Amino acid sequence: MKTAETVKDTRAIIKEWKKQGLSVGLVPTMGFLHEGHESLIRRSAAENDRTVVSIFVNPMQFGKNEDLETYPRDFERDSRICERAGADLIFHPQPEEMYPPDFFTYTDMDTLTEGLCGSHRPGHFRGVCTVVGKLFHIAAPDRAYFGQKDAQQLSVIRKMVRDLNFDLEVVGCPTVREEDGLAKSSRNTYLSPEERQAATVLHKALLHAEKAIAGGERDAAAIRGEMLRIIEAEPLAVPDYVEIVDWELLQPVRKLEKPALVAVAVKFGKTRLIDNYIWE
Amino acid sequence: MKTAETVKDTRAIIKEWKKQGLSVGLVPTMGFLHEGHESLIRRSAAENDRTVVSIFVNPMQFGKNEDLETYPRDFERDSRICERAGADLIFHPQPEEMYPPDFFTYTDMDTLTEGLCGSHRPGHFRGVCTVVGKLFHIAAPDRAYFGQKDAQQLSVIRKMVRDLNFDLEVVGCPTVREEDGLAKSSRNTYLSPEERQAATVLHKALLHAEKAIAGGERDAAAIRGEMLRIIEAEPLAVPDYVEIVDWELLQPVRKLEKPALVAVAVKFGKTRLIDNYIWE
Repeated sequence: MKTAETVKDTRAIIKEWKKQGLSVGLVPTMGFLHEGHESLIRRSAAENDRTVVSIFVNPMQFGKNEDLETYPRDFERDSRICERAGADLIFHPQPEEMYPPDFFTYTDMDTLTEGLCGSHRPGHFRGVCTVVGKLFHIAAPDRAYFGQKDAQQLSVIRKMVRDLNFDLEVVGCPTVREEDGLAKSSRNTYLSPEERQAATVLHKALLHAEKAIAGGERDAAAIRGEMLRIIEAEPLAVPDYVEIVDWELLQPVRKLEKPALVAVAVKFGKTRLIDNYIWE
Repeated sequence: MKTAETVKDTRAIIKEWKKQGLSVGLVPTMGFLHEGHESLIRRSAAENDRTVVSIFVNPMQFGKNEDLETYPRDFERDSRICERAGADLIFHPQPEEMYPPDFFTYTDMDTLTEGLCGSHRPGHFRGVCTVVGKLFHIAAPDRAYFGQKDAQQLSVIRKMVRDLNFDLEVVGCPTVREEDGLAKSSRNTYLSPEERQAATVLHKALLHAEKAIAGGERDAAAIRGEMLRIIEAEPLAVPDYVEIVDWELLQPVRKLEKPALVAVAVKFGKTRLIDNYIWE
């Protein structure tokens, strides 16, 4: 496995592979890898001749009062995880390699980015679209892998690829969970033991929604109300949002009729966690 | 020479070329081709194994009260010009192929798009960046050719390519002129015989600037003042702007010290023409 820090070196390696007719999978990450990332890397390694993992804490997708400075980083550990999961190349740029002085181009979209995390994190998806577009241009992958845990991000990237005619396949992969149901996330490391315990409330609320829908409930307000009660019963949990939107344009729905995304964001102290259930 | 109307067909043809190791040049146009476009196609054909010309009047780069509906179109004639200039493929999509329902992603930038045509045509460069990015993804060119007549557009596209890491070379080509100096433009066909005569005033004003700078004049206000007097001496000419900006970030300059763009936009009735001189 190789590591490259510049766009130029990364491209040179990937072009050599392409010349040999090899297919390339890309797993964009912000590092501090967990089993969720590892499952993406393994899947890419299984489906492509070569797998590139990008490790870059993207400043452009963090808001002013968010956790850019404290976001956990451990390149040595990440590197070992990439290698054992079957990656062939890590692209690990410094911020100035991705955003040189006088950088001012961006990609963004309306509609899909308005609700859910978009309304709570203004500018977040502009940062995501811009950096992911850059990574697509740098790695020229045949397939790119994203976790369903970040469902809105997955949806936004699929839309960007379709609208802007990127020539690649976006592969969404199932959320990987701890034994007690908490979705794996690099931000889980922020939690105190008490908060970690309380954080299972996201999954509990989503399980409730899943069961209610399976039992025939179609009224979004009723499902959301019950989910909110479950979350608010946990003293350490401060709900950011509990939403049910259609799984195409992410617009709020009153009745569940077509595939829908049930999405929650909950704060525990300064730590904000998200999770979701997709009803298809 | 082939013609394709869909993204899928265009890609299939270009991928076949790429498999054979052939290089690809792209000339994005809005059709109604003139000798300016023809010079771009000839240059691409000389520098690449295969040349793709896109012909698409891009609705997204027209403002509400602009000439989208009346913009001249003549595909048969365009097709003959492409063939004789050495094109191998015309990509000629319908608007719904480029902008299907629920299209809402865009690429845009700050700074470079604020002045000159950007301030007089809000949203114009968002439309340009978005469609050119799409064309780059569809044609995957090694080189893309743009005329220096649209100097701000050339500058914006170069910046987009650099910022977003598109893996291609942007080639700027000299403006092609009528015998009396008027820059070739599809919009020249809008002019009445009297307006056509009056339109030489753009080139006259730019020639004045060129001579003044060659003679040692470095004061932007003095040069602009004299240019405005030349334009306003022509009764049919209504100046939209006369600007001198640095040729890197297109910011207005007081003194000419480094490469600068002298740019003019003038209206003749409803027809708006642009031209420029680049001092390097």
